[in-house]
Amino acid sequence: MKVSLSVNIGLCGFGTVGQGVYKHLVKSRADITERLGAEVKITRIAVNDINKKRSVKVSKQLLTEDALEIANDPSIHVVCELIGGTALARKVTLAALKHGKIVVSANKALICDHGAEIFEAARKFGGHFFFEASVAGGIPIIKALREGLVANRFSRIYGILNGTCNYILTQMGSRGLPYSDVLKQAKELGYAEADESLDVEGWDTAHKASVLAWLAHGVWVKPSQMIVEGINRLSPADLSNAATLGYSIKLLAVITRDFSTNELCVRVHPTLLPVNSVVASVGGVFNAVAVTGDVVGTTHYIGRGAGQDATASAVISDIADAVALIKHGKGTHLTSESYEPNTKGCTLAPLERITGSYYIRLTVKDQSGVLAKVARVLSQNKVSIATMIQNPAHVGAASLVLTTHETNEKSIGKALKRLSALGSVLETPLVLRIGNFTD
Amino acid sequence: MKVSLSVNIGLCGFGTVGQGVYKHLVKSRADITERLGAEVKITRIAVNDINKKRSVKVSKQLLTEDALEIANDPSIHVVCELIGGTALARKVTLAALKHGKIVVSANKALICDHGAEIFEAARKFGGHFFFEASVAGGIPIIKALREGLVANRFSRIYGILNGTCNYILTQMGSRGLPYSDVLKQAKELGYAEADESLDVEGWDTAHKASVLAWLAHGVWVKPSQMIVEGINRLSPADLSNAATLGYSIKLLAVITRDFSTNELCVRVHPTLLPVNSVVASVGGVFNAVAVTGDVVGTTHYIGRGAGQDATASAVISDIADAVALIKHGKGTHLTSESYEPNTKGCTLAPLERITGSYYIRLTVKDQSGVLAKVARVLSQNKVSIATMIQNPAHVGAASLVLTTHETNEKSIGKALKRLSALGSVLETPLVLRIGNFTD
Repeated sequence: MKVSLSVNIGLCGFGTVGQGVYKHLVKSRADITERLGAEVKITRIAVNDINKKRSVKVSKQLLTEDALEIANDPSIHVVCELIGGTALARKVTLAALKHGKIVVSANKALICDHGAEIFEAARKFGGHFFFEASVAGGIPIIKALREGLVANRFSRIYGILNGTCNYILTQMGSRGLPYSDVLKQAKELGYAEADESLDVEGWDTAHKASVLAWLAHGVWVKPSQMIVEGINRLSPADLSNAATLGYSIKLLAVITRDFSTNELCVRVHPTLLPVNSVVASVGGVFNAVAVTGDVVGTTHYIGRGAGQDATASAVISDIADAVALIKHGKGTHLTSESYEPNTKGCTLAPLERITGSYYIRLTVKDQSGVLAKVARVLSQNKVSIATMIQNPAHVGAASLVLTTHETNEKSIGKALKRLSALGSVLETPLVLRIGNFTD
Repeated sequence: MKVSLSVNIGLCGFGTVGQGVYKHLVKSRADITERLGAEVKITRIAVNDINKKRSVKVSKQLLTEDALEIANDPSIHVVCELIGGTALARKVTLAALKHGKIVVSANKALICDHGAEIFEAARKFGGHFFFEASVAGGIPIIKALREGLVANRFSRIYGILNGTCNYILTQMGSRGLPYSDVLKQAKELGYAEADESLDVEGWDTAHKASVLAWLAHGVWVKPSQMIVEGINRLSPADLSNAATLGYSIKLLAVITRDFSTNELCVRVHPTLLPVNSVVASVGGVFNAVAVTGDVVGTTHYIGRGAGQDATASAVISDIADAVALIKHGKGTHLTSESYEPNTKGCTLAPLERITGSYYIRLTVKDQSGVLAKVARVLSQNKVSIATMIQNPAHVGAASLVLTTHETNEKSIGKALKRLSALGSVLETPLVLRIGNFTD
């Protein structure tokens, strides 16, 4: 095959993902050249420290400590922003787009915080911004939503978008270990960061939810406009209680749009899912996304959501799309800059109006009359009890686990405030949402 | 939004799928125009009988009884070949491609039988052929393999590609009903054709396997070069035996490539899958595909594999890609004509060398010594027994269900021939393959 085009790639950031992209591009260079009809060359790599030892060997001549140099280098066509964080990453991205370059990024926090600015810069200067690796790692969910399911309006998208949390919940459930033990183990295995808060408090999932919500609905939703709750207050008892009730617990992003009111709702929280649902069956570090479209119905996508190789697979698919754009003239409609989802009149639903059923765990004094008090508070706030499990907690205390019939965030919030104020309730109540998603 | 481009679509075939495409394109015309930056108009529809009553109302002026007229009409940019069958469909497809048009097709039999000729014509005359709807209905699996997973070489692709068979097996398993009863019910519900043979004998799945094998490996494999076995000899007892052993039974297409020997193997057969695997958990009319790539690991795709709406969703996504091509100049690398997968030196593995474990059900005379004879035949052919279940079959007969340790097609074939010749074996033995795919 005759190859007349050579595309120069600059990698900004050479950590786990950057090295993965380098490794796989080099390994499969011949295949990729043949598939794309163009040579793809990594011609420059920005690192923090040129002299640091790395497991992937690269010529020192490729390296620079100045990522902006790559963004401004006229010989580089595609800039892979794999730096992480949002400060330098934003600068590099905007600089490259100003030169009309194509930027490939895995950075969900960057998109969530600065997406509007980035896409505006891409439109203004004729650059492009690709981000398949930013959500659900190796699963091509961005391409599926933007292109494969283009005929659809999305009433619901939900899924497991953080492998660390899914690993922790799976281990807690299957081995009955407390959160702190499993977290420690996850850190030892490299599944959790030294500072785990971004993952376990739900922020990473919220960033990804923001990307998906924008892609599906054209609205930028910030984490501050969502319900965001993490998994750090869950106990193995919650997972076994849920199992008794026929549920698994997963940290989910849930994006719903009601096309009759045109209201959008984005939330991230541990969710009780029916055990026999597809997403509930996805364990370990895997991610899973369920997409409900008005034409296709529900489709599911499952795979590794993070890690060097899965993320590299997604970055390389974006590089392939970038090469196609360069080869045949920029500007296919399916890039995200020109993609105009059905935004018209779409507003954010007030969070307190969200309806659903709830799981409530209360630690209460083990004495008579407590259950009556709890039941009265719930009833006064129009929260009606569906099931109840009582277990001993520790000496003198009992654990009350309730599930409710359908109610809403406002009622449950008021009821919880009153419950917390009861002298017989010993700890802040734990509330989980039940996702009765059967597809 | 200013729209300067109008793309004219001709529908050839106006059955279930054609009417679905029409309905959804008309319904979401405004959305689609905005997303694609181009107007999409259905300007001509070929039908069998202009005067036939249809649930979807269209102006008679749009209709013609000559599909070739559409293929040859210079005002039509995109021809949707939704005729079915391979004779007229081939003529229409080749005629349209000769005019450099884009053809969108849902026709797996056409691609399997005439794919090489079709892609050659597309290359020669500058046309394009899109076929997202040909495999797994609304699941964007073609796009995922070709674009989303472009960084990968595929060691294994397997899945449920026929919703009719999956519905029948699910019903047989959950309700214990015999094959013939469930088939009758599936016909009444419209899940099975009046002539069910294409589905239940595995040919439809084989056509789809051929499309996926070509896409992943660049080799055209005909059904005659595959193992193709259907579900029509299965009994509810097989499903319950399998369940006892920890398996579900699914009709699978299995495409494996060994990159050390560079051998490709394509087969279609009912398969025992571990009950806790993702694909095993997919029931009813749903399809599921598991794709193992060398970079990304295994990803799963699940959704409706057939039906008016799911297929229309896929056809419309192809129309969107066609509009992008027209809008920005034809020829992005990711169309299948110019896509050159890693074919080099890839050969078909001799079927008899395929290894695996097997499930064998024998109906034997219920008398002493029979088990010894069966065991001897197996042992003489180097087939070693892993598990055995014996149940009464009918008066004077017993059902022997064996699973084997790993062996190969040649040994099992020889053993079965010998078993069939035993006087104490009353019916042709039923053999199923065990797919110990844990991912």
